[in-house]
Amino acid sequence: HYSSQNRLVTMIPGDGIGPEISVAVKQIFSAAGVPIDWEDVDVTPVKGPDGMFRLPPKIFESMERTKVGLKGPLATPIGKGHQSLNLALRKAFSLYANVRPCKSIEGYETPYKNVDIVTIRENTEGEYSGIEHVIVDGVVQSIKLITENASMRVAEYAFKYARDNQRNTVTAVHKANIMRMSDGLFLKCCRDVAAKNKDIKFSEMYLDTVCLNLVQDPGSFDVLVMPNLYGDILSDLCAGLIGGLGVTPSGNIGEEGALFESVHGTAPDIAGQNKANPTALLLSAVMMLRYMELTSFADRIETAAFSVIREGQHLTGDLGGQSTCSAFTDEICRKVQAS
Amino acid sequence: HYSSQNRLVTMIPGDGIGPEISVAVKQIFSAAGVPIDWEDVDVTPVKGPDGMFRLPPKIFESMERTKVGLKGPLATPIGKGHQSLNLALRKAFSLYANVRPCKSIEGYETPYKNVDIVTIRENTEGEYSGIEHVIVDGVVQSIKLITENASMRVAEYAFKYARDNQRNTVTAVHKANIMRMSDGLFLKCCRDVAAKNKDIKFSEMYLDTVCLNLVQDPGSFDVLVMPNLYGDILSDLCAGLIGGLGVTPSGNIGEEGALFESVHGTAPDIAGQNKANPTALLLSAVMMLRYMELTSFADRIETAAFSVIREGQHLTGDLGGQSTCSAFTDEICRKVQAS
Ligand SMILES: CC(C)[C@H](C(=O)O)[C@@H](O)C(=O)O
Ligand SMILES: CC(C)[C@H](C(=O)O)[C@@H](O)C(=O)O
Repeated sequence: HYSSQNRLVTMIPGDGIGPEISVAVKQIFSAAGVPIDWEDVDVTPVKGPDGMFRLPPKIFESMERTKVGLKGPLATPIGKGHQSLNLALRKAFSLYANVRPCKSIEGYETPYKNVDIVTIRENTEGEYSGIEHVIVDGVVQSIKLITENASMRVAEYAFKYARDNQRNTVTAVHKANIMRMSDGLFLKCCRDVAAKNKDIKFSEMYLDTVCLNLVQDPGSFDVLVMPNLYGDILSDLCAGLIGGLGVTPSGNIGEEGALFESVHGTAPDIAGQNKANPTALLLSAVMMLRYMELTSFADRIETAAFSVIREGQHLTGDLGGQSTCSAFTDEICRKVQAS
Repeated sequence: HYSSQNRLVTMIPGDGIGPEISVAVKQIFSAAGVPIDWEDVDVTPVKGPDGMFRLPPKIFESMERTKVGLKGPLATPIGKGHQSLNLALRKAFSLYANVRPCKSIEGYETPYKNVDIVTIRENTEGEYSGIEHVIVDGVVQSIKLITENASMRVAEYAFKYARDNQRNTVTAVHKANIMRMSDGLFLKCCRDVAAKNKDIKFSEMYLDTVCLNLVQDPGSFDVLVMPNLYGDILSDLCAGLIGGLGVTPSGNIGEEGALFESVHGTAPDIAGQNKANPTALLLSAVMMLRYMELTSFADRIETAAFSVIREGQHLTGDLGGQSTCSAFTDEICRKVQAS
């Protein structure tokens, strides 16, 4: 498990609005006196001899040293065959669990109240194996790969997460009625782990039923654990229930380190105009502080951010206000300092 | 394409509440004077020499003759290895497109207004190929199979459906950023068909983005076309937006025939108690009438059903009322006869 003396954090500002929202987070961290140092890393992809773009070596060197990173949105190079840099990072550091808490935010209205769901997504295999073949012209197969190791690892993480965060129930999401062997294996692993963690309730539900129930009664869900693609879908669905990717944090947890990121886009249309909303990156940074066991800093910053949103006087455009990114950030800093 | 002189329809009442809601539909059809005859078929599965349950031969004989069926919910036999009877029917009759219209129902409140979405799901392959292997102990693969034939067929159906039903836009739903070859092929087929159907607008969207936008702004969607599993998920999500599977019709369209079905469960807890809600089966029957080009009967029955729901005096429990299935049915019959 992660432990760091020097408290150095790799910062990947990213593209588009990434630099602005990264500056906002740093400013709020300073205001709170968070005892960490940032190591900024540019991830402009490097073109290899094969014409493909790759992550620059510096990011690997930095993450090896710091074990923990915060990342803004990355634009994937345009053109055929480029792998998403986001996925490349998850793979490179074996970040096996993707965690996205979605909790209703007071003052930011959606048709739903009382959403408080955490999706925990297997982050390394499944439909994201990358293994595909043309069998004959016009017939293609993609392979969904499910292993016992990866399924056990993410199931164990889900139960540990539930316990550490005072949650009651872990629900395994699957289509084992259709993919009997692959989702069947995933489900069996969840059941086995559940049997060893009787203090946490366990339930299982078909993916389609989960989707239906999420829009009808999201308050009935707690922690969800699932294969990769299902997590991709449900984490976005849950984000939609509380207001979208602009307010939803995300963490990618590995055996030895973790990368926290805002999962919204680079918003090139408003980049550089001081209009961006730093909330998703800030809340991801708060998750990071908890991961680093800097809990009291996490609590203070989170409380400040939510109270600025609740009061509604200094919000960016996407949150329904007219303030700049820096005015919103300054107000959070003021609250943090007063706390 | 389907054409029938005798207007004989196969009726599969199904299990649990299936028989009651089938009777309700027949009663409403009689009240409207719909010129069809029903051929009832029991689908209690037959146990084969291998111990597996199968659909009885009679269902195949009937559907061969009638080419069109209406089906209530079926309970899949309990125990390992039994294939869903629902899926067996889709396969047996090559029902390649699964169509589920989800339109907000006046008088039946949900957090959303103005939902009017049709999901068109590839119904024969994709993640439902049934091809799975254990590679070594603890390592399983499932195969997602995408073919040009099936993708073209469902894409063509989606554009034809859009045109026949005065819809504006077809959106292809995919994860071709991850499954570049399989979803890539599906998407290419949709683009090719779109290029030949310029009177209908075409757009494409990632599955995760669709989920997010569906809960934030469902009114922005029109006709969606997608591979099998994505359709399973999105059709349930959309059903949830308008009130659930109890009010959502479904049709499985083949080259030579079609099977319409309510996709809710068998509700064994209320079966036989005259409490069931026949709306989903009735609206599926209305879709069937349109398919059979008995449009004016379809319109009259649909109008009657929606006005009973809007008036709210004779609703079953799940619709928020206290009426029996037969009181609700009688009221629809009265409206149909008065129209
Ligand atoms: C950008 C894309 C490759 C990625 C995914 O599919 O996982 C994104 O949707 C996410 O959820 O982080
Ligand atoms: C019952 C089940 C096998 C089926 C499916 O997965 O297709 C159902 O969810 C549906 O959508 O009709």
